[in-house]
Amino acid sequence: MPTTVHAYGVHEAGKPLVPVTVERRDVGPHDVRLDILYCGICHSDMNYVDGTFGPTAVSPLVPGHEIVGRVTETGSEVSRHRVGDLVGIGCMVNSCRVCENCRAGQEQYCRQGSTLVFGAPDPVEPGAHTQGGYSGAIVAPEDFVVRVPESLDPAAAAPLLCAGITVYSPLKRFGARPGTRVAVVGLGGLGHLGVKTAKAMGAEVTVLSQSGGKREAAAALGADHYAVTGDGSAFTELAGTFDIILNTVSAPVSLTDYLGMLRLHGTLVNVGVTTEPMPVDVFALLQNGRSFVGSLFGGIAETQEMLDFAAEHGITADIELIGAQDINTAYERILASDVRYRFVIDGATFAEPRRA
Amino acid sequence: MPTTVHAYGVHEAGKPLVPVTVERRDVGPHDVRLDILYCGICHSDMNYVDGTFGPTAVSPLVPGHEIVGRVTETGSEVSRHRVGDLVGIGCMVNSCRVCENCRAGQEQYCRQGSTLVFGAPDPVEPGAHTQGGYSGAIVAPEDFVVRVPESLDPAAAAPLLCAGITVYSPLKRFGARPGTRVAVVGLGGLGHLGVKTAKAMGAEVTVLSQSGGKREAAAALGADHYAVTGDGSAFTELAGTFDIILNTVSAPVSLTDYLGMLRLHGTLVNVGVTTEPMPVDVFALLQNGRSFVGSLFGGIAETQEMLDFAAEHGITADIELIGAQDINTAYERILASDVRYRFVIDGATFAEPRRA
Repeated sequence: MPTTVHAYGVHEAGKPLVPVTVERRDVGPHDVRLDILYCGICHSDMNYVDGTFGPTAVSPLVPGHEIVGRVTETGSEVSRHRVGDLVGIGCMVNSCRVCENCRAGQEQYCRQGSTLVFGAPDPVEPGAHTQGGYSGAIVAPEDFVVRVPESLDPAAAAPLLCAGITVYSPLKRFGARPGTRVAVVGLGGLGHLGVKTAKAMGAEVTVLSQSGGKREAAAALGADHYAVTGDGSAFTELAGTFDIILNTVSAPVSLTDYLGMLRLHGTLVNVGVTTEPMPVDVFALLQNGRSFVGSLFGGIAETQEMLDFAAEHGITADIELIGAQDINTAYERILASDVRYRFVIDGATFAEPRRA
Repeated sequence: MPTTVHAYGVHEAGKPLVPVTVERRDVGPHDVRLDILYCGICHSDMNYVDGTFGPTAVSPLVPGHEIVGRVTETGSEVSRHRVGDLVGIGCMVNSCRVCENCRAGQEQYCRQGSTLVFGAPDPVEPGAHTQGGYSGAIVAPEDFVVRVPESLDPAAAAPLLCAGITVYSPLKRFGARPGTRVAVVGLGGLGHLGVKTAKAMGAEVTVLSQSGGKREAAAALGADHYAVTGDGSAFTELAGTFDIILNTVSAPVSLTDYLGMLRLHGTLVNVGVTTEPMPVDVFALLQNGRSFVGSLFGGIAETQEMLDFAAEHGITADIELIGAQDINTAYERILASDVRYRFVIDGATFAEPRRA
């Protein structure tokens, strides 16, 4: 018997989120069920619900892909998790598991397409679509559920499941470590975790920001340097400086300017998503043998590795905890860049809205 | 006493090349002088003489940066080369030697700017500009002169000094080897050496071409596969296939189409130079964690390594040998894609034009 759980979602792209209910399937042999304690709000949730990424795949559509919860039930074949475990679910809940990318532990690049945690046809339940973490409980295959170290504040750990792995994966891949210089463009949900993660890896970290307004905030996060890009002078002064530039901005930027700040074999990694193509000047790439790279969250094993790294270094997101009834206001505040740095929804409020 | 040598050059951008003379300085303590036996014609020579890269820096301007010659004189401090040695000079004849890129053996990315073999202010001779290989002899610092293995045909080896290192460097950097799949876009001077080099490294090589016209030529060069991109179907059929795509085309291409053909962590390397910015779709980069990279010829030690690799594997360019009086015709034929695959000028004809 499927279970009905309280949730927040949209019936149509572009409409405000409203209380809805979704059905969660019975726990299958390889599934775990968790009560959702916290769910982060990521900018891409907003892209799905406002229609930027196309019409909603299902109605209602319940977003949310930064989930921390406690296991309440496990299937007969489950060996990775036990009832009572603190666990997390991020962007995906399944993949084909047999393609070369899945076998390489990079399920986010599954050749068949990974099953996103919401709005995707669910291979485990033909005909059904996945529904995300803005809800009281979720059922998912154990292999796509990761262990959240108990030493981490579970609310502040929720954003690690998307924002955290999204910055950890490319920083690790491109060698952030003592002696390397990392720049972080944009100091939002992704960016602030980028600073913390790159610092924990031992890199020298610079925050690049349009204005001087986030200087103190950057220092508080541990950044070594801060440079203002708005007047363009930083592009000249810091030419050829960085090994890695992590661009977290979800809007077009001047790639030529940022590429120019990379030193020998440096990498500009885009983890921000924009649907607008950006012009690339080949000469900016040729000099110093520079790379412009994309990176999409990370694989499951890598997500576990990131959570363990976060526990070791005490990394969590700086968050503002809200009740479910405040999700629409949170969306407005995100668009106004009025959040430091991540909203997290208290899972207890999906069933019983918390009074402000 | 400087020596006057016969050469071919332009007095003004956009004009045909004509016989000129240039002065070569006396051999300094760290210099070698060589008689130029052969000089390849590279597309970028044409960009300099036709004004695409701006007005000519000096008049006359003598291009040519794929030089093979024999040492005729060595400076008092020279230890790398001896009179009679077969040697080569490529794109640069100096660099600052102390910046981090020079110290890393990547002098082509010298932070002060490497000294290009023609049209550049010459740090060794203040006030003078370098003049290239379309000439009978040249004087250059020994550190920027490489040894050409005697087993290589010296005329056919000349294009290795630019085209050869330009393809070798990124193929090596991005791991072409047995088990990897390499695609080469464009089958000209760079592309045909790209096929030979990638094959010699053990990779499985596909030539991607607008039409079917070069299928046999590709097979003759050793390519394993050939795919026609003109109708767009190859982009779908070969989606997610290649580890490395070497783009040798000196014109804008649809990056999204080519990026889509890269498998996990694959790299699209641009060695073709175009001044027109190309739009990049971030989603095409995000999937599979793809990279778009630039690569500019190679360092001096790497160029020596490439020449030794070429000797070991019997790699030279397929060339058409011409006399100096035919350079302008050769330029026209290059623009008409009527060359397989590289024109090389017989150095003996600069002083005494060879009769056709």
